[in-house]
Amino acid sequence: MYTRPLARLIEHLQHLPGVGPKTAQRLALHILKRPKEEVAALAQALLDAKQQVGHCSVCGHLSADPVCEICSSPKRDDRLLCVVEDSRDLIALEKTREYKGKYHVLGGLISPIDGIGPEQLNIQALVRRVSQQSIQEVIMAISPSVEGETTTLYVAHLLKPFTKVTRIAFGLPMGGDLEYADEVTLARALEGRRELE
Amino acid sequence: MYTRPLARLIEHLQHLPGVGPKTAQRLALHILKRPKEEVAALAQALLDAKQQVGHCSVCGHLSADPVCEICSSPKRDDRLLCVVEDSRDLIALEKTREYKGKYHVLGGLISPIDGIGPEQLNIQALVRRVSQQSIQEVIMAISPSVEGETTTLYVAHLLKPFTKVTRIAFGLPMGGDLEYADEVTLARALEGRRELE
Repeated sequence: MYTRPLARLIEHLQHLPGVGPKTAQRLALHILKRPKEEVAALAQALLDAKQQVGHCSVCGHLSADPVCEICSSPKRDDRLLCVVEDSRDLIALEKTREYKGKYHVLGGLISPIDGIGPEQLNIQALVRRVSQQSIQEVIMAISPSVEGETTTLYVAHLLKPFTKVTRIAFGLPMGGDLEYADEVTLARALEGRRELE
Repeated sequence: MYTRPLARLIEHLQHLPGVGPKTAQRLALHILKRPKEEVAALAQALLDAKQQVGHCSVCGHLSADPVCEICSSPKRDDRLLCVVEDSRDLIALEKTREYKGKYHVLGGLISPIDGIGPEQLNIQALVRRVSQQSIQEVIMAISPSVEGETTTLYVAHLLKPFTKVTRIAFGLPMGGDLEYADEVTLARALEGRRELE
């Protein structure tokens, strides 16, 4: 049905997340229609990204330089540190444009089932960072899953001797309907209530 | 927010159909996590497909060889020819496993608005093929859009002196609900009615 090089491309595209056989075929046929230069540029972008992007030596965020732009920026507040699971979460927080401090990327969550213990994560460097610098507040911004809770509590326990540790709020999402919220979210929203000023 | 090579990869991925900023980011971050060899293989598959896949000199289908597998297969019925808009439609028909004849790929539809006339399409070769070979039936399998209708009628007119020309049926899709079918589809279904045997 597919000529060999096309079949091979479709197979490779199917390894991408959210890409099934139909999408892979659509992408491959689209690619065949594009100019040679455009396809070469895409292939080169893939290779470059894989080859050049590593992790920031300070915070663990994806970076092509030894120290990432956020860590080396003089505009960011050194006294605030936000701890996230991975670069994806960091990017999501950056998009809010609300946070002006620095980050620390753990690179995963503690998960005994998957054989991931604290030593596999970027936690040692975090403790060193917090114990050696004058950080006023560490904000734990980890998703509220079982692994997330474990990791948050574990990290908070290690950092409390050195600084104040807070966590982001859990509750009803904006635009969310109270009636349709699940009980756990609702319980968290009640628990996290604040006085109106 | 993104380190440069990552930003470039995301931008290139956004040129793919159905890939917006969010999907592009997800794909790029996934790619960064994959082994170097896998990324290199994907890049190579892109280049190979673009470089090696051309068009079959007989039918116009995508093919890495001068003559595609269908055209060179002795198992396919030479007396039946199915005319389609592009390789995507050919693949869709092949997936039914119902058709054992050969194909002819037009490479587009007549569309005066887009400046596409019959001479830009693979029509001349089709007429030559039909006039020189003993083909019993040409099946027009073109989507029923304005351009599709125009192309079907135009091509049929050219081929009728040489052979019988038919077209695929239009009507209610299987599992479709008569109540919710649009009027044009319903009118076509009525028009195409057949006697029960």
